[in-house]
Amino acid sequence: MGKIRVGILGATGAVGQRFVQLLEDHPWFELTVLAASDRSVGKRYAEACHWILPEEMPERVRDMVLQDCTPGLECELLFSALPSHIAREVEPTFAEAGYIICSNASAYRMEPDIPLLIPEVNPDHTGLIETQRQRRGWSGFIITNPNCTTTHLVSALKPLHEAFGLEKVFVVSMQAISGAGYPGVASLDILDNVIPYISGEEEKVESEPRKLLGRLAGDHIEMAPFQVSAQCNRVDVRDGHTECVSVALRHSASREDIVEALRSFRSVPQEKRLPHAPDPAIIVRDEPDRPQPVLDRLAGDVPGMATVVGRIRPCPLLDWKFVVLGHNTIRGAAGGALLNAELLVAQGWIAS
Amino acid sequence: MGKIRVGILGATGAVGQRFVQLLEDHPWFELTVLAASDRSVGKRYAEACHWILPEEMPERVRDMVLQDCTPGLECELLFSALPSHIAREVEPTFAEAGYIICSNASAYRMEPDIPLLIPEVNPDHTGLIETQRQRRGWSGFIITNPNCTTTHLVSALKPLHEAFGLEKVFVVSMQAISGAGYPGVASLDILDNVIPYISGEEEKVESEPRKLLGRLAGDHIEMAPFQVSAQCNRVDVRDGHTECVSVALRHSASREDIVEALRSFRSVPQEKRLPHAPDPAIIVRDEPDRPQPVLDRLAGDVPGMATVVGRIRPCPLLDWKFVVLGHNTIRGAAGGALLNAELLVAQGWIAS
Amino acid sequence: MGKIRVGILGATGAVGQRFVQLLEDHPWFELTVLAASDRSVGKRYAEACHWILPEEMPERVRDMVLQDCTPGLECELLFSALPSHIAREVEPTFAEAGYIICSNASAYRMEPDIPLLIPEVNPDHTGLIETQRQRRGWSGFIITNPNCTTTHLVSALKPLHEAFGLEKVFVVSMQAISGAGYPGVASLDILDNVIPYISGEEEKVESEPRKLLGRLAGDHIEMAPFQVSAQCNRVDVRDGHTECVSVALRHSASREDIVEALRSFRSVPQEKRLPHAPDPAIIVRDEPDRPQPVLDRLAGDVPGMATVVGRIRPCPLLDWKFVVLGHNTIRGAAGGALLNAELLVAQGWIAS
Amino acid sequence: MGKIRVGILGATGAVGQRFVQLLEDHPWFELTVLAASDRSVGKRYAEACHWILPEEMPERVRDMVLQDCTPGLECELLFSALPSHIAREVEPTFAEAGYIICSNASAYRMEPDIPLLIPEVNPDHTGLIETQRQRRGWSGFIITNPNCTTTHLVSALKPLHEAFGLEKVFVVSMQAISGAGYPGVASLDILDNVIPYISGEEEKVESEPRKLLGRLAGDHIEMAPFQVSAQCNRVDVRDGHTECVSVALRHSASREDIVEALRSFRSVPQEKRLPHAPDPAIIVRDEPDRPQPVLDRLAGDVPGMATVVGRIRPCPLLDWKFVVLGHNTIRGAAGGALLNAELLVAQGWIAS
Repeated sequence: MGKIRVGILGATGAVGQRFVQLLEDHPWFELTVLAASDRSVGKRYAEACHWILPEEMPERVRDMVLQDCTPGLECELLFSALPSHIAREVEPTFAEAGYIICSNASAYRMEPDIPLLIPEVNPDHTGLIETQRQRRGWSGFIITNPNCTTTHLVSALKPLHEAFGLEKVFVVSMQAISGAGYPGVASLDILDNVIPYISGEEEKVESEPRKLLGRLAGDHIEMAPFQVSAQCNRVDVRDGHTECVSVALRHSASREDIVEALRSFRSVPQEKRLPHAPDPAIIVRDEPDRPQPVLDRLAGDVPGMATVVGRIRPCPLLDWKFVVLGHNTIRGAAGGALLNAELLVAQGWIAS
Repeated sequence: MGKIRVGILGATGAVGQRFVQLLEDHPWFELTVLAASDRSVGKRYAEACHWILPEEMPERVRDMVLQDCTPGLECELLFSALPSHIAREVEPTFAEAGYIICSNASAYRMEPDIPLLIPEVNPDHTGLIETQRQRRGWSGFIITNPNCTTTHLVSALKPLHEAFGLEKVFVVSMQAISGAGYPGVASLDILDNVIPYISGEEEKVESEPRKLLGRLAGDHIEMAPFQVSAQCNRVDVRDGHTECVSVALRHSASREDIVEALRSFRSVPQEKRLPHAPDPAIIVRDEPDRPQPVLDRLAGDVPGMATVVGRIRPCPLLDWKFVVLGHNTIRGAAGGALLNAELLVAQGWIAS
Repeated sequence: MGKIRVGILGATGAVGQRFVQLLEDHPWFELTVLAASDRSVGKRYAEACHWILPEEMPERVRDMVLQDCTPGLECELLFSALPSHIAREVEPTFAEAGYIICSNASAYRMEPDIPLLIPEVNPDHTGLIETQRQRRGWSGFIITNPNCTTTHLVSALKPLHEAFGLEKVFVVSMQAISGAGYPGVASLDILDNVIPYISGEEEKVESEPRKLLGRLAGDHIEMAPFQVSAQCNRVDVRDGHTECVSVALRHSASREDIVEALRSFRSVPQEKRLPHAPDPAIIVRDEPDRPQPVLDRLAGDVPGMATVVGRIRPCPLLDWKFVVLGHNTIRGAAGGALLNAELLVAQGWIAS
Repeated sequence: MGKIRVGILGATGAVGQRFVQLLEDHPWFELTVLAASDRSVGKRYAEACHWILPEEMPERVRDMVLQDCTPGLECELLFSALPSHIAREVEPTFAEAGYIICSNASAYRMEPDIPLLIPEVNPDHTGLIETQRQRRGWSGFIITNPNCTTTHLVSALKPLHEAFGLEKVFVVSMQAISGAGYPGVASLDILDNVIPYISGEEEKVESEPRKLLGRLAGDHIEMAPFQVSAQCNRVDVRDGHTECVSVALRHSASREDIVEALRSFRSVPQEKRLPHAPDPAIIVRDEPDRPQPVLDRLAGDVPGMATVVGRIRPCPLLDWKFVVLGHNTIRGAAGGALLNAELLVAQGWIAS
């Protein structure tokens, strides 16, 4: 039984590079296709790509030749790191042609028939796939992972929502520069500075959590009935988004209840031991000054895949406040899409 | 009619240096005394002080000799940049001996009979001074300015509270390293990082605003009846605290109402044209990505004294959210104490 | 007698913005023309320009409309902040049409009949202008200022060359990100990093000093007979290039001789009191750890125009080593071109 | 045959923590002793130590109790991360008592009878040990590793010296903040800045290389006959020193000769496959803009132990110039001392 052949759409960008790195020596997937924009098609990967990761570029991709983002690629599953406006055009052509798309793009996240997935949070939402195929007449399908800030926020909220019911969520993020891709944020804009604005980000963080924590109701998701208010900032940090969160809960909970709910949380990826599932999924720190990006962004047994929570304390206005931290280009982007693909395998949506 | 002779307690530290700089060529005050801890007493200022400001050390203070922090100093008014635990011991000895203390320390801010002042916000709270003198038997007195984060938060809240009534305030701060003094934050702790914790800070930001916006009721302040929830973070920015704020208001207000209330705000310092009063006191920016520390921390006609507000927009949970920015060691510390002293002169508490 | 009308070619970029800022309220020049690339032509300056300076955009340029970079502009003198390959095409068309060009571009710096000027260093090199006009049949002319790193290096070397004769120069630079323009250096490339390479920079720093310190010999410059070895690095500093320099001198000099030569140096700009001439031109610091960008880049009476030298000490291999620091976008770019224009006025090349 | 018991003197500081991390699961050494200053003695390591490494503190050291830095410790070999002035007092008392000291302190580096060692460079200098014991009457002995900047400089120079003979060396360093320990460099001193001075550093870099590349001549080292000129700067980089180097060689060499000499260099640690020996010892990069701290400080098969060289090109003044980069707290400090200890085992100075 061979490995499943996979490809990357948008392979030369910041997220594309993370896919390349994470797929090196994957036990289930073999990277056979790198696709990119016209400008790069026909070039060797090592030549077309300005590699920005500290880890050296894997030897075997250096000479792979970049292909066009059009069906005909030799693989079953595609990871999409395309910009959203291009993803909107390109991804359906592949789904129609029978490919499975695990997309990091925001284009289709909020479509009613397209799953927005965090395997620990709502693995059952893959139940939308059949609806999607029927409605759109596709032989393949698209699944998506949420925005980087949403991902870690909802990973931390899930056990609380399950145990105590969320009513309100305040979140202020301090987001890393790698979230803007490459070249992304100009150094003159961020050195000795904070930018209190990221285009489109607050809208995503205020809407995606309600779909992720929503209920699969046949052919659509019933949005979870809580409100989110988000304020998103860029800070001069390479990797790792920090989020200050306050929540109101339906049922009262003690600090011990909160900690216990977070620490004991395990879900499908941990139970099925998916290759990129961190265990524990959520790391709770007791120190007064943690989590911090430089110390915690790679915490846990699968570097960059866990969510770290700290500073759990009462909120004078809502119920509890705490700090959430997670790696934005691993679990918050490429790693999130990859774990989604691993979930698809575990659920039998794709066979090797 | 000569200038009022003033001195600085804790003159060699980060805030002490700002006092030195701001007092250069002051129209009303003449700096005659520099006092510091035992370690520095007897040394020339230029020798005892590791000067960290980009502006050159003023020529005339270089050869001033540092004195002991005990009464007998040749001046009428003292600016205190002492650490809080030392301020607690030292400041009363001066007040008893007849000195006026304008203190930046937190030691006495929340005492019922000691004014916590922002001249634009609660200039009438100097009405506590007589109570203080009587109760404590002092010929001098102490007034205080709030924490750096509180200062700019409350400066922005004041016009809203006056016009629409505050009910709830959420604030998440991203605070500059200069707020921790010198040497303060280790570079290994903050490069490529966020520290989601500043010791004692959240408690101050949650309590001081209620006193500042409270009502003078004879011999005490009636706390304003709203709640604040604060989360304070350190970021790698030299100067300028950025604060993400959400507020609930008692009376409904449109975005135009909010902007108008902030833009038109003038108070005693502007009317009396105090030397360090910024005019306008509040600068409202319309761009989607302002204010930013590097662009706005020195904005306005008196550098570092104004509060800058931007990104005013509806909050899905409360009523309005916005971003507040201000200079933490100027208006947020030394400049705040200096404007308080100027208010005392304008109100006739001290004569030249 | 009115002001001289001046314009800026490439007005929206980082150096263009510095020209705008430095020309505000200039005693001799009036800014009447802003020109830029096709993309911006016809737009208001405030709209076309992503302003990156902490100083607010001057009110009077906000509504000025950007014009095409072709002759016909209403002014006598043009400051060029064009990219080099565009400067190469555009600048001669203006010189031919009678304009005076003070160019910051590298395109024509090393041409034999085009002056490469630092007013303190080689003001007599304007003697090339007549040769240039005759040879090229131009009614206007072009003068240039050197590369930012060269500028401060040669400003410090000039008094030493004059007094003791330079034989060899080693220089390793640590250059600010603003030197790369905007957006310029990506934050992902420079946070927590050093880039030991700047394209084309070392070649400039190894060649320009020999022309600047060369001798006007009728219709050309005789290169000064010393060698330079340069290594150029980018560091995460906003403004201010730091240079570690070692020199071998023809005649022996004591440390006191070196300091005296630097401190006492005055030249045409200081004698003629040109509006942007710093006095002193060179600031010598005695502390062991100065100059530093954050403390010294704006040192002196005309912010950003002086060169700061420190750490003068013997070199085990050559004769003396020291550290040079200067502002790269003020004296090292726009300010350098502006002082060149002021020199032209003082020398009578242009009349108001 | 059991593991050799080792301890750390100065275990709670920045270098001490690196020793702890590098000794986790070491094949030959077992960490049995943690010693520190009086202030920490008797406390648990987890309690006494402000851990600053991104890697989590190893579980097994958390509860180890800190001991006094006096003989009687239960181990054969001690790694010393003591400050130099303390090392000067403390290390001899251990050597006299029979312990082997592998010291990172500078105190004894230049003593004639104490080896200053880089295992790849001068493994035969352990020949001084017998002289040292006899002369001092010690049953144990001290060996030292060089300064962090020297270490990588000399690692790169060794193959060139061997093949072509060094005559002159210029070096300008851009050093990481971790080199100053913890808390070390204040963030206010280094954000947006370069500090062109590190106390005592240039003296070390100008003297240590001559001993390291010197010749063992019976009971002393004959210094290598070349001169070094060093200029040392601090930059805002967490880990990894970057050095711009120029060399004059006795025998002429082409660029290919230089590259070949560096790339093919192997020495005792590589041949004996010491656990922390990187292979290759020197990594040569061909890109124009490498090495860079963020990309190359952990390069190679043993993270942080290799030296990376790039930008090899002719020098207009000497013969060749190039850029050297290496990790300062791994190979440049704790890792260097550890490899020295591994060399001692390989040479039979200590038996397990």
